[in-house]
Order: sequence, then structure tokens, then C-alpha cells
Amino acid sequence: MKYFTSVHDVKSVEQMLQDALALKKNPLGFQHLGKGKTLGLVFLNQSLRTRLSTQKAGNNLGMNVIALNVGQESWTWEFDDNVVMNGAKVEHIKDAAAVMGQYCDVIGIRCFPSLTSREDDYNEKVINQFIKYCRVPVVSLESATRHPLQSFADLITITENWNKPSKPKVVLSWGHHIKPLPQSVANSFTEWMRNADVDFVVTHPEGYELSTEFTQGVKVTHNQDEALRGADFVYVKNWSSFEDYGQTPAVSGDWLLTPERMQITNNAKVMHCLPVRRNLEVSDSLLDGENSLILQQADNRLYAAQAVLKEILETNFF
Amino acid sequence: MKYFTSVHDVKSVEQMLQDALALKKNPLGFQHLGKGKTLGLVFLNQSLRTRLSTQKAGNNLGMNVIALNVGQESWTWEFDDNVVMNGAKVEHIKDAAAVMGQYCDVIGIRCFPSLTSREDDYNEKVINQFIKYCRVPVVSLESATRHPLQSFADLITITENWNKPSKPKVVLSWGHHIKPLPQSVANSFTEWMRNADVDFVVTHPEGYELSTEFTQGVKVTHNQDEALRGADFVYVKNWSSFEDYGQTPAVSGDWLLTPERMQITNNAKVMHCLPVRRNLEVSDSLLDGENSLILQQADNRLYAAQAVLKEILETNFF
Amino acid sequence: MKYFTSVHDVKSVEQMLQDALALKKNPLGFQHLGKGKTLGLVFLNQSLRTRLSTQKAGNNLGMNVIALNVGQESWTWEFDDNVVMNGAKVEHIKDAAAVMGQYCDVIGIRCFPSLTSREDDYNEKVINQFIKYCRVPVVSLESATRHPLQSFADLITITENWNKPSKPKVVLSWGHHIKPLPQSVANSFTEWMRNADVDFVVTHPEGYELSTEFTQGVKVTHNQDEALRGADFVYVKNWSSFEDYGQTPAVSGDWLLTPERMQITNNAKVMHCLPVRRNLEVSDSLLDGENSLILQQADNRLYAAQAVLKEILETNFF
Repeated sequence: MKYFTSVHDVKSVEQMLQDALALKKNPLGFQHLGKGKTLGLVFLNQSLRTRLSTQKAGNNLGMNVIALNVGQESWTWEFDDNVVMNGAKVEHIKDAAAVMGQYCDVIGIRCFPSLTSREDDYNEKVINQFIKYCRVPVVSLESATRHPLQSFADLITITENWNKPSKPKVVLSWGHHIKPLPQSVANSFTEWMRNADVDFVVTHPEGYELSTEFTQGVKVTHNQDEALRGADFVYVKNWSSFEDYGQTPAVSGDWLLTPERMQITNNAKVMHCLPVRRNLEVSDSLLDGENSLILQQADNRLYAAQAVLKEILETNFF
Repeated sequence: MKYFTSVHDVKSVEQMLQDALALKKNPLGFQHLGKGKTLGLVFLNQSLRTRLSTQKAGNNLGMNVIALNVGQESWTWEFDDNVVMNGAKVEHIKDAAAVMGQYCDVIGIRCFPSLTSREDDYNEKVINQFIKYCRVPVVSLESATRHPLQSFADLITITENWNKPSKPKVVLSWGHHIKPLPQSVANSFTEWMRNADVDFVVTHPEGYELSTEFTQGVKVTHNQDEALRGADFVYVKNWSSFEDYGQTPAVSGDWLLTPERMQITNNAKVMHCLPVRRNLEVSDSLLDGENSLILQQADNRLYAAQAVLKEILETNFF
Repeated sequence: MKYFTSVHDVKSVEQMLQDALALKKNPLGFQHLGKGKTLGLVFLNQSLRTRLSTQKAGNNLGMNVIALNVGQESWTWEFDDNVVMNGAKVEHIKDAAAVMGQYCDVIGIRCFPSLTSREDDYNEKVINQFIKYCRVPVVSLESATRHPLQSFADLITITENWNKPSKPKVVLSWGHHIKPLPQSVANSFTEWMRNADVDFVVTHPEGYELSTEFTQGVKVTHNQDEALRGADFVYVKNWSSFEDYGQTPAVSGDWLLTPERMQITNNAKVMHCLPVRRNLEVSDSLLDGENSLILQQADNRLYAAQAVLKEILETNFF
């Protein structure tokens, strides 16, 4: 595996899942793999879990980690080709990426969508250029359309919390927010759940349909109650409109996940990728209750990142 | 010791002081203690000495260190419970702290006071929530009311500069500034001096009384000359009003510490925690003179931090 | 070597050049040199190549690296002596530098010119004060008038790309920009080329003369064609006026380096220190063409930094 940007980059999800669970028991057992190697972490946007868990994953594997906050510590990037660079953008991504590829053995990059140009975002204009020019293995730390390390950690978490022979019912439920958010976590979770042995349902208000690239063949309903009925896992997340791109069409009804709403589920576990808008997306009592998996999800970010980095270190020539 | 937030957390100040002096002679002698362990450093405010000395202290003890600038690199935190998070705050401290506690074995956190709500500040609303939710050992890198690593370094410095059988006279003297500063260094120094074998006096203009929680039983005078007479150590520091909380009441007289004022002392050493407003709090000639201890204090920050981290590594199960 | 701020600090450029080329083949061969030592990196300005390459150079030599973004993570610095610090500047450089010198064995510092006071800039007011007060070995990561690590990397690159017995013709050619830039790269490249075995020419529009401190004895022409004729290496870089200090006098003619202009050269290699304003300073087709050395220059930043740090570690007592 040279690139980890979506579930499609993974040869065997089941194998990598087992790897992550094994690393969780023995996180320092593979320090020789990264010895003398450099992991670069590039942030075009803010980060907490991703920043800390990936840095620690690199350390656990014996790598040196160097991080760069683009635009704060360094210069703003130009993403368009063939332009006369006489504006505010100081350095072309093709130069920045190529330079970093020379200093780093593996690079993780976080690049949120613009939410203004759907074409650019869904063509993954930023991460694809970065990959093209840096020439070394790249791990997505959340790109314009996907957040695969999060979804992998979510899959680990669901696996750890399900030991019945039947498939669990997993629901992705839209939640309120105060501003337009990317569709990346929702897209990515959908993509990974389609590849997992689960009964998967997405529910959201009208106008918030995800791209059919992700939801094709997936059960989707505007009726939250219908989705929640008998659910084993409920994942709450806000996203903005794909159709009316980056907008937040008026929503009818209250989509806050409350204990009352959960009564219709099969005593479901509650999931969220964090940061969560408490009492707007999900009630405090659910997030802090015994069925909450939010901290376990965050903890598994470390092992997801470490499994991905380990796979990259083992399958590439350096 | 699981938490280091004030002198009251220290079982034996004398023992930890001896530890710090021993570490100063052999800083790399305990690398095995931190091997494979992660020190997280969380900054809600700016830092120079604390950032660098604590990072180096962790390195010296063999730890991996990961730092996070909250609000710049990551998201702004909500500190109130049970609120609907529909404002500018993106993540609740309870989630952020709990997540970081999973990635880190020990966490240092810097969180200055608001200087607007005395109740919140003196209840240590931020660091106490952080401690509650992160569940791992925590070191204060300066909180709303105290700066214990600084005070510990100050104690080390005084110890190194006093070899007479009698108690030294130590004076904490208020200095001018251009804006309201926390009371934390003054509070903390007072707290540590009360626990040390010194003759301690605080002097400041009217209206700048510290909380009696800290000054109870301590000699306090508005007469700077009276305080300075016969002093062996003079520590200068600005702070804002506790009574008229966070305000800067008009000051009568000039509180700048000058060589002229120092003549009344017993050839006293000059101390300041830095950063110092030169020629506003203390004259250049004193700060740069042979009686200045400011650099020694800063140097001892490293050994203070290392002694605290060593004690934590030795007395907790990981 | 205790300080590396210009070519004049280097005992033998040829020896250090051979060292860098050897390190390029064996970058991890000297980890014992830096073991237990701390490299501090201080940034008063933005950085990409310098930040990452110097950090990696330190890691490659076994050092612990701690970085500080002054003014973002820490406090703004006062540079004037004997002032009453009652303004916006929070800490005097003399205190900050002295403190950091206690925590670090070697310090790299980046401090761009003001471009407002030529006297201050050309007296190297910032880095010279830093050196004076920190008392440990210092590496310039680009100062007000020079960028020696860049120039050293440029020399390595030219050496790698020239194997004829004759001297190569090396041209430094001014390029367009949208705002006033420092003269440091141009000064420094000139200084290093004067010390190298090359035929060196500088070309720029009228009004953009560099300080004669750097160009004395160097061929300078306002005729770009004349300079380019028969050139083996063309280095493009923008800078602002030295005479009308920090200003950008009107320029006659188009100084963009294009493939057409290059036809007059001896199939010259194209160089730039990056970040480059594409199609304003140099055409895309040249930067991305087979004669472009821009990535090799950036790559050599690592070995330049490592050779300098290695020399410092080997020739100082710690």
C-alpha cells in the first residue's frame, strides 16, 4: 500500500483490522520498522485527535515525526496550474509537495474541502496534487471528501463492541450544527460500512443527500425513527448539502439525538467522531452514558493510524 | 504524586528539592523511566520557558513529547457544562481532555485566568475540569491562580544562593506593568515561601492585596522601603487586583526597582520569573548586574520540571 | 566553528562541501555526535524548507529538536537597549536568547530584515544580539542580510552538476515579484560564488544594485541578455532596492526568465531557492523542465544543514 486515502486503497480490510487489534495489545513491538525514517505531518486545517494520534503512531513505530502548519508557520499554497502567481498565494503545491517528499519517507496530509467548488472538492484537487508531486507514500488525515483513518477507527470500535453471529444494524444519522461542515466523515463512514459485514442505514433531512458515489445501494431514509428502530449502533454527524453544494438548507424537525429517541433502538451504542456539538447533535446524557463509544473511537484512532503506517512501512521500498 | 498543581501536592518539598539538585548534576541519568511514554503539552496561552524547559525535561527522561496549541492548531474549548453548544466554542473540554488522556501518559497544561470571573478563576475551572476528565497525571504549566513549576525553580535558586545558618529575608515586591496580569506567580511564590525556611515579606500598593488564602500569616506592607530593608532576595512581579478583580487601580508612588532602592537591602539578589518589562518593573542595571538571578531561575525551570516528572513517573502505575 | 552566519565563518568551504556530499551518502552515520544534545530552532518568520530540513538534520545527527514560533506560541521581542518597555513588546531579546541558550546546545534562528531601517538590518541587529546573549553556537536560518544554508546548498548543487575542467558561468538574475523582498538570498549567493571557482555575473534592473559589500569585484550588468549569454547556471531571485531601501522602483522591461531567453545560454541549468512565483519570476516550463535544479537545491538543504551542525558538534565543547 503506497497511498491510504479511502477504503479502496486497502488490500484486505479484515487483515488490517486484525493488525490494528494486535497493535493495540503490543503498540511498541514494531519500532524497528520506522527506525531512521521520517513521518511528515502537513496540516492545512485544525486538528486534535488526528494530530496527536498520528504523531504518536509514528513514534510508536520508531519514526521521527515532523509537523508543519501550512499558512501559519509556512506559506499559503497555490493549487491552480499555469497561473501567473501574482496574488496572495506564495508557493505552488507542486513545489511544496515535491520538497517535502524529499525530506520525508511517509507524509500525512489534512486538507478540508473548500465547500465552494464541488468539482474541485470531489476531484480531490488538493490531496491528489500532493500525492502526484511528493512521490512518497501518503496518508490522508482527512481530505475534501473522506476521512478514512476515522472510518477505520470506527470499524475497529464496532468490531470490539459486537460479538453476536448476526449482523449489527448500524445507522448514520445527521445532526444539527451552526455552520456548513464537510461531507467527508459521512462519505467515508458510508464507504467503510458498505465494505463491512453490517446492516447499514443512513438517515438525514431532505436536501442533505450524500453523493450517490457513496450511497449507491445503501438504504437511505428521511425518517429518523424508521432508521433508529432496532439499531445496534447510532453514529451522529452533521454535514452540509451535496446537491446545493456547501449550503445548509432549512431543516424540518428536530434531529438532536436524545435518550427518548434512543428507546426505539436495540439499546444502541452511540458514536461520534468528535469534536461534537453537545446538546445540538447529541444530548450530554448519551455522550456521557454507558453506551457511548466516543472515547473508544478516539482511542482507536491511534491503532488505525499505526496499522496504516505499519502496512506502508512493510510494503514499500525506502 | 498524580497531580502537580500547587505546593500542597508535594509530599516532601525538601526531598523534591534535593532530587532537582541531583538531576542538575546528572540530567540524563533516568532515561529508562520515560522510555515508551508520552508527555503531552497543552497550551491555551503563550509560553517560552515553560514550553522549552518542560519539553526538554521530558526528553531528558526518555519520553516522547507531543505539544498542542489549543485554538491555533486545534479547536477552541467550551468550559461550561450542560450548554447547547451553538456558539463559537467547537469542542468541550471534557471530550478534549478525555481524548488526550488516552494518548498521553502524563499531560502538562497551561491555562491562564480569564481575569473577568474571579469565581471561575479561583475555582480553577479549567485545570480542574481537565484533571477530572483526562484521568492521567497532570502537571500545571501555570493555571489561573498558581505557577508551581516557577515557584519550585525559584526555591531551587534561593537554595543555591544561600549558605548561611540564618534564614534569608525574601521580599516579593509588586512592579509596574501596562496591562492587567494574573496573580498566579505572586500567589504561588507566596505559597512556596510559606513552606520554606525563610523570612518572607510581601509589598505592594494599596488595592493590590492578594487573596488571604495565600497571604494568611504572611507579613504584608504597602511600604516598599520597609520591606526591602535588610532583604537578601527581592522578587519583583506585577499582578492585577484581586479585590477589584482583574483591574489595575491607580498606584501612588514609583515601584520600579532601581539600584538606589536596593541600597537599603543586604546586597540582595534580584529575582523575576520573566518575561520582565525592563525599566518598568526593574532597572536594566539590576537585571544585568552581578546580583541578578533571573537566568539561573530560568535554567532551574528545567530541573524543576524534570524532578516533578520523575516523581510522577516513579509513583504512578502506567 | 561556533557561529554559521556567512561564508566567512567557514574555515574551509571545500572541506565542508566534501563533508556534505559524504553525509548525503551516509546521513545516519554520525548519530553519536548529537546524542543527548538539544537543537533549538527559533522562527521569527515563516519557513518550510529551512524548518523541515534543519529539524531532520538534527534528528539525523541524533539530537533532540525543539522549535519555537516567536510571537505566535511565545511573546514578541524588544530589540532596543535601554528602553522603558511600556509598549507592545513583551520580552527583551537579551532575556529570551540567554534563556534559550541555557536549554539548547545549538540554536538556529530565522530573522528576516525589517526592510525599513537599512542600518539596523545591515548591522544584523537581531541575529547579532541573539548570538551575543545566548552564548551557545548559533546557525543562521536566514538573517537580515544573508541566507547561508541556502547558499551552501546551492554550491553543493552546482558542484554536483558540473564536471568539466573549466569554470562554469553562473548568473544571478533578478526576477519580478509583487512585494518587496529581502536582499539576503542574493547577497549570500553572491558571497558564496565569490568564494567558489566559478565565473560569476549578477544582472538586475537599474535601482536594484546590491550593497557593494557583497558585489565588490563582481561583474554586474543591467543587460540580462549579456549576462545570460553562454551561462551554465542561471539563478533567479527577486529582491528589493538596497539604495532606496526596501522599495521597489519601477522596472523597465520584462525580467521573467522564459525558454526563449534561455536559448542564449549554454543549455543552462535553472536555479531558485523557493518559494518561487511561477510565471512571474520563472516560466513553469523551465521550473518543471529537465534543466531545473530547484528540487535538488531543496534536497541539498538537508545536507548543508547537517554538515554545518556536524562541524559545530565536532569543534565545540559542550
